[in-house]
Amino acid sequence: MILDFIDQNKSRYEDELKAFLRIPSISTSPEHKGEVRRCAEFVSDELKRIGLQNVGIYETAGHPVVYGERLDGGAGAPTVLFYGHYDVQPVDPLNLWTNPPFEPTIKGDNIYARGSVDDKGQVWLQLKAIEAHLRTNGALPVNVKVMIEGEEEIGSPNLDKFLADHKDLLACDTVLVSDTPMFGYDQPSLCYGLRGLCYMQVEVTGPNRDLHSGFFGGAVANPINALGVMISKLKDEKGKILIDGFYDNVVAITDRERAEFAKLPYDRKAFMADLETDATPGEEGYSELERMWTRPTLDCNGIWGGFQGEGAKTVLPSKAHAKISMRLVPGQSPEEIAKKFEAFIMKIKPAGVKVNVIDLHGGMPAMTPIDSRGMTAARKAMHEVFGKEPFLTREGGSIPIVNSFSSILGAPTVLMGFGLPDQDAHSPNEKMNLNNFHRGIKCGALFFEYMKA
Amino acid sequence: MILDFIDQNKSRYEDELKAFLRIPSISTSPEHKGEVRRCAEFVSDELKRIGLQNVGIYETAGHPVVYGERLDGGAGAPTVLFYGHYDVQPVDPLNLWTNPPFEPTIKGDNIYARGSVDDKGQVWLQLKAIEAHLRTNGALPVNVKVMIEGEEEIGSPNLDKFLADHKDLLACDTVLVSDTPMFGYDQPSLCYGLRGLCYMQVEVTGPNRDLHSGFFGGAVANPINALGVMISKLKDEKGKILIDGFYDNVVAITDRERAEFAKLPYDRKAFMADLETDATPGEEGYSELERMWTRPTLDCNGIWGGFQGEGAKTVLPSKAHAKISMRLVPGQSPEEIAKKFEAFIMKIKPAGVKVNVIDLHGGMPAMTPIDSRGMTAARKAMHEVFGKEPFLTREGGSIPIVNSFSSILGAPTVLMGFGLPDQDAHSPNEKMNLNNFHRGIKCGALFFEYMKA
Repeated sequence: MILDFIDQNKSRYEDELKAFLRIPSISTSPEHKGEVRRCAEFVSDELKRIGLQNVGIYETAGHPVVYGERLDGGAGAPTVLFYGHYDVQPVDPLNLWTNPPFEPTIKGDNIYARGSVDDKGQVWLQLKAIEAHLRTNGALPVNVKVMIEGEEEIGSPNLDKFLADHKDLLACDTVLVSDTPMFGYDQPSLCYGLRGLCYMQVEVTGPNRDLHSGFFGGAVANPINALGVMISKLKDEKGKILIDGFYDNVVAITDRERAEFAKLPYDRKAFMADLETDATPGEEGYSELERMWTRPTLDCNGIWGGFQGEGAKTVLPSKAHAKISMRLVPGQSPEEIAKKFEAFIMKIKPAGVKVNVIDLHGGMPAMTPIDSRGMTAARKAMHEVFGKEPFLTREGGSIPIVNSFSSILGAPTVLMGFGLPDQDAHSPNEKMNLNNFHRGIKCGALFFEYMKA
Repeated sequence: MILDFIDQNKSRYEDELKAFLRIPSISTSPEHKGEVRRCAEFVSDELKRIGLQNVGIYETAGHPVVYGERLDGGAGAPTVLFYGHYDVQPVDPLNLWTNPPFEPTIKGDNIYARGSVDDKGQVWLQLKAIEAHLRTNGALPVNVKVMIEGEEEIGSPNLDKFLADHKDLLACDTVLVSDTPMFGYDQPSLCYGLRGLCYMQVEVTGPNRDLHSGFFGGAVANPINALGVMISKLKDEKGKILIDGFYDNVVAITDRERAEFAKLPYDRKAFMADLETDATPGEEGYSELERMWTRPTLDCNGIWGGFQGEGAKTVLPSKAHAKISMRLVPGQSPEEIAKKFEAFIMKIKPAGVKVNVIDLHGGMPAMTPIDSRGMTAARKAMHEVFGKEPFLTREGGSIPIVNSFSSILGAPTVLMGFGLPDQDAHSPNEKMNLNNFHRGIKCGALFFEYMKA
């Protein structure tokens, strides 16, 4: 019944989405500040119109957050917090767009506009899922809270404070986010794990000043050579990280996860051809996807020291630097790994050099258990709508807001996204597939339904 | 008799030197071109005045070379080519000079002026040695040729062509250069060996573009890590270079050389304190001086790749680069070592990266045998004038003109210099010790004498 309602309202949904997309809510652009505000009001009006309660526009130090809720499920029922963002990326280079970025245009199955997939289309489809329940049943199956922010595209600088300041208002069992791609068209997927990060900088000092490599070469520690030796000692030839205790707390991948990943249409040859490389080196005993998603890594992100210009300057440099970061997996924390990294560096430091280690940045890994209530509801919903079980995936990067939801609200996040890998989210001609937009509405509606069960 | 003559002419020598030093012959400065020319004429006039023959100012693409000769020794006698330069370094920063750089001023035992020690004072002392022979004996004991160039401070860009174009004119058995420092005051020394150079650049390419270290980390070769591993494989923990065949042709240090170096007042603690380091790592089995002077080395001179700015950019870079140079010792050639370096790099290259090796620059090592005629004459001369046997030293750097004399003229070079390590050759308040200036004249005079024997 609710799915029929959704089928009958397709053209209205598309018209409404177009109105949302016409507002140039570019959060990074000061001259669009008024448009960003107008967009927040547009969202707020819609939350009220579809029947949410306690709707408000909350000021922050930057652009406002729009909030609304409908606590039909009552005290014992689970509470879902739906998070999305109404701000969009800039549109340059404008000349590469085939239609003006804020004049949404439908061609074939796609709607083209800035923000179509990232994230207005995916915000709208969840609002339509909520609306469908309220229009057909007069109530939602569970408690639902909606928080739509206006600063995601500039790194959500004020979101953590907002979460902390409104912990009670936002209290929930599961966060639902629709802002990620599916594996492919007709290939629904759910990402349930993200890696964390420990990003360090190492400064190596040999002699107190740059020296002539002829006069001094042979009796002075060279900080670049020393750094090379230290880098080489961080991993063995089988890709295992040698930092003492590095793997102590790693949560191992399960057989079930391996089986799930093995179902994915990963193509090693295409992967290598795309990168123009002839090998995919990494930790022995794991497939590429397992290594990129479930295993910690160590990579140098930058290195510099001595003479970097044209030609041959015979300098024996005083200093060398490297940025070295480790992707972390559930069980590890950036604090733990930063300590172990520094201790190991100090242990392997060659004679004659001083080493300074700086902790530049860290982020926690995140995982939503496959059999958690949220993941189970999302899998069932996608299976029903797409006619097939969604792939279960993890991702090698971080999504900072997921960490915030975990650390501040104490809630796991379900990443049920309906984008596609080729939809040019931050580029000209951003688009959203309208079939997936409509399928997304149905998935959202069923997700709330199955959260109840 | 000749030494008495030299003693009696001290004040005239100093007055003449002052006149030479007053000419601002800054070779790097276009607006001083006329002064450089005037200085060449000043030298040419002096060569004629003291009695040299066939004196001429030879044009080059840059500043001219002044030449003169006196072939009194006849056909069977050895021929010495004295080389020096009449051009000087710039004078900035002028405000740090306590007297104007081209108004030579005597304070205590020193004469202060730009060019005083590098190299006008040392050119003049050899011309005075020649003059002393001609004034007291009417002839020189051996054939003497004098070549004074005007582009040493800009790297002698036209000297090789000049040597090649005038091979017969410049043909000689030994080249004499006075442009280096002694080990210390009252510590005469003779440098008889210089190291060569093989300077390479290594470019490592992993994926064809910079990647997100979260998405790809774990399944892609990192060119910085790969470069670190390669650098670590170039030397073992005892400082031995591991490139296949690297030491094949090295001429080993002799017991006599070790004994000579052991006489030098080298102070390890002072060496380490000056560089603010707590170790002097290098090849096992050799002292610091032996390592810096007689053993080949391998040092990274520069390294760069990936993100080098402030903060934490999570890039998995496409490329990394290093400049790696090797100091060579007699027996080795840059061509040989460049080939062996490249072959070894290709052998140790990890999977998944491409490596490109570029040969940037090379220079031959040089050695003048301790018991050669020129070295023996110089040792005897210094011993007599200083009242002690000179230290025998080698040097870790290169002096390109010495290679040119060797490769183009086929003659070894005697580096009999009278500078001191603290005479600020390229800095404000350059000075020359006048006692050494006068001792240098005597050494020069006796050198020509002992070359005959």
